[in-house]
Amino acid sequence: MMQRIAVLGATGSIGDSTLAILAAHPQQYQVYALSGYHRLDKLFALCQQFVPKRVNVPAAAVDDFAQRLSAAKLDIEVVGGAAGLIDIATDSQTDTVVAAIVGAAGLPSTLAAARAGKRILLANKEALVMAGQVMIDAVKTHHATLLPLDSEHNAIFQCLPVDIQQDSRQIHQPKHGVRKLWLTASGGPFLQQSFAQMQKAGVAEAVKHPNWSMGQKISVDSATMMNKGLELIEACHLFDLSEDKINVVIHPQSIIHSMVEYSDGSFLAQLGSPDMKTPIAHALSYPARIDSGSQPLDLYALSGLEFIEPDLQKFACLRLARQAMQAGTQATIVLNAANEIAVAAFLAGQIRLTDIADINEQALSEIQVPLLAASADIEDILSIDQLARRHTEALVAKVAKSI
Amino acid sequence: MMQRIAVLGATGSIGDSTLAILAAHPQQYQVYALSGYHRLDKLFALCQQFVPKRVNVPAAAVDDFAQRLSAAKLDIEVVGGAAGLIDIATDSQTDTVVAAIVGAAGLPSTLAAARAGKRILLANKEALVMAGQVMIDAVKTHHATLLPLDSEHNAIFQCLPVDIQQDSRQIHQPKHGVRKLWLTASGGPFLQQSFAQMQKAGVAEAVKHPNWSMGQKISVDSATMMNKGLELIEACHLFDLSEDKINVVIHPQSIIHSMVEYSDGSFLAQLGSPDMKTPIAHALSYPARIDSGSQPLDLYALSGLEFIEPDLQKFACLRLARQAMQAGTQATIVLNAANEIAVAAFLAGQIRLTDIADINEQALSEIQVPLLAASADIEDILSIDQLARRHTEALVAKVAKSI
Repeated sequence: MMQRIAVLGATGSIGDSTLAILAAHPQQYQVYALSGYHRLDKLFALCQQFVPKRVNVPAAAVDDFAQRLSAAKLDIEVVGGAAGLIDIATDSQTDTVVAAIVGAAGLPSTLAAARAGKRILLANKEALVMAGQVMIDAVKTHHATLLPLDSEHNAIFQCLPVDIQQDSRQIHQPKHGVRKLWLTASGGPFLQQSFAQMQKAGVAEAVKHPNWSMGQKISVDSATMMNKGLELIEACHLFDLSEDKINVVIHPQSIIHSMVEYSDGSFLAQLGSPDMKTPIAHALSYPARIDSGSQPLDLYALSGLEFIEPDLQKFACLRLARQAMQAGTQATIVLNAANEIAVAAFLAGQIRLTDIADINEQALSEIQVPLLAASADIEDILSIDQLARRHTEALVAKVAKSI
Repeated sequence: MMQRIAVLGATGSIGDSTLAILAAHPQQYQVYALSGYHRLDKLFALCQQFVPKRVNVPAAAVDDFAQRLSAAKLDIEVVGGAAGLIDIATDSQTDTVVAAIVGAAGLPSTLAAARAGKRILLANKEALVMAGQVMIDAVKTHHATLLPLDSEHNAIFQCLPVDIQQDSRQIHQPKHGVRKLWLTASGGPFLQQSFAQMQKAGVAEAVKHPNWSMGQKISVDSATMMNKGLELIEACHLFDLSEDKINVVIHPQSIIHSMVEYSDGSFLAQLGSPDMKTPIAHALSYPARIDSGSQPLDLYALSGLEFIEPDLQKFACLRLARQAMQAGTQATIVLNAANEIAVAAFLAGQIRLTDIADINEQALSEIQVPLLAASADIEDILSIDQLARRHTEALVAKVAKSI
């Protein structure tokens, strides 16, 4: 059976990898819809290549884009803005939604896809960091399927027993014998450097990830290990575990992508080349497997695999993520929002790399928001997000002035 | 529900580990029967500790052993010899048979357990090396369950999809996407030494395994890598794959116990401390998990994991195993028998360590046996085995004289 796919965030790096796989398996997958925001020329080229039925662009770009398509004799419906994004995510013709929009902007469409009972391939961390409980409830209520694309969560998913894979909420049953999850981290570009060196690092150094090729925001998060903190929060929601059941281990070679530790002493691990095509292909074809086109790992060429306990002084963001997870969803929303603002300020040259953790910590302690009610919805979440962003902008301004 | 266990080969190292686990979980497992051969004092102590219903000893020892039990006021039925062993393996009260007898001696009872539809925890390699097709056919026909205890095969089992776990004959379905199995090997005590050094090695050096504590025969097999060759043959039968689908990789740290490579680029691996209690606990409790009592792996203490392609000149036994597997079961019977004789001769100081491979190779090329028919039974197998042993004894005598 043909699976019809909507790729939300088609022009980013997850979009690239996803579309490379879809292009290689035209008998199994149809590119039904695409969305893009900043890179509309690239989106146009993808429309020419894949000829989806529908495409989403920013509201202001709809007319222009429709004219370009029409001039190229491409019969593709253009839908605009956030409403259009939700429209293609919930379209009855869409079987699978690849949720690859970075940041809070991806939240409403991902949640809408869950409420429409779709099969969701989740790369948008914020959906779980900001709205974990709401998302998971929606998935359960509407019988959606949530498959993680992050290499770490996908690795853990592959290493869990099949009945947990099919209902991740059952992980507490003692019969599964799951003792711990182990998230692996590369340690980023500053693993071997001192805090003082990290403090002086410019943007170019911070975004130079040793193993993975990723966007700028996530590369900075990797340098501060905030990325691993967000993944920790994501894993708590995905696998219904408290943060103390999830360990982080630095594995600089990024060959083992994460692990599950069982009560009998077994660790199951997923290994592979650091190439997002592997987890994407896994999630697309689950429970079957397809060729991902990734370069096969040459086991005979491997050596010197290392495992290191993270230094929580140098990588304070990881400590903050655990603290926020313990405090509750309102705190993880604040942390995520503060971090987005702080990272943007660093990328704009306003603050130092090491200021990010300080600003995040200050935001967490200063921003007073009530516990999020069980009935909280996306508006409540987005209002905390906005509050935290405004407050953090003020914090950034103060720090920027002082350095 | 209480699982009643018969431990065949209770006084060996697999027996030790199994009984340590059973002792720790008295609510779940009952030691129903034990067998021993050489170490009857140890077997007697186990009878005192576990008070099984039945015990098997060599036929000549039955009366003595029964008297000792009776003097100790232990109401345990003693059954003698090979027939007694089959009797406890097929006893209607036995749920699970731990097949841990080393060598060809374990074959008839293991096969009998399969034909009685038992749940079999298999440590006895020879059952598959000598009688792979017969064993697998018996398992299928009589709805027995075959769970591997060897750390490598157990690791592979854990890394396979659940529907293959429950019917290993389905591995060829392309939907599973299994590309290769990877058997890991420690490389044994001579990994860093030259062939010339290996040639001069005495028994004490050859049985000094770097990571695992095992019996003498298997330790020598590990030094020549014949052990990995036998495991390769075992894996072909267990997972219904030809030998070219199974790679061997030397991983001197013995942390990764084996792997499955999938078409999407994923490798699933099982890791753990080198302690047989982990795979035994896994197989005992499968599909649930229990605490094995093994020392948990300290991930933060790991470093320098290496992976090396085996040198088939130095470890010629591995090449011979592939060659025998290609030729057919009659050849794997010859290889196994020749190797047992050659290893015994090495342990007795008659030949050098490196003569083992030469003798095995000569045996394989000289001993002419017809292709084993599909209808072949254990008598046909044992007659090839006997023929090969006699021929190899002559080969050993010649080599022993020449050195």
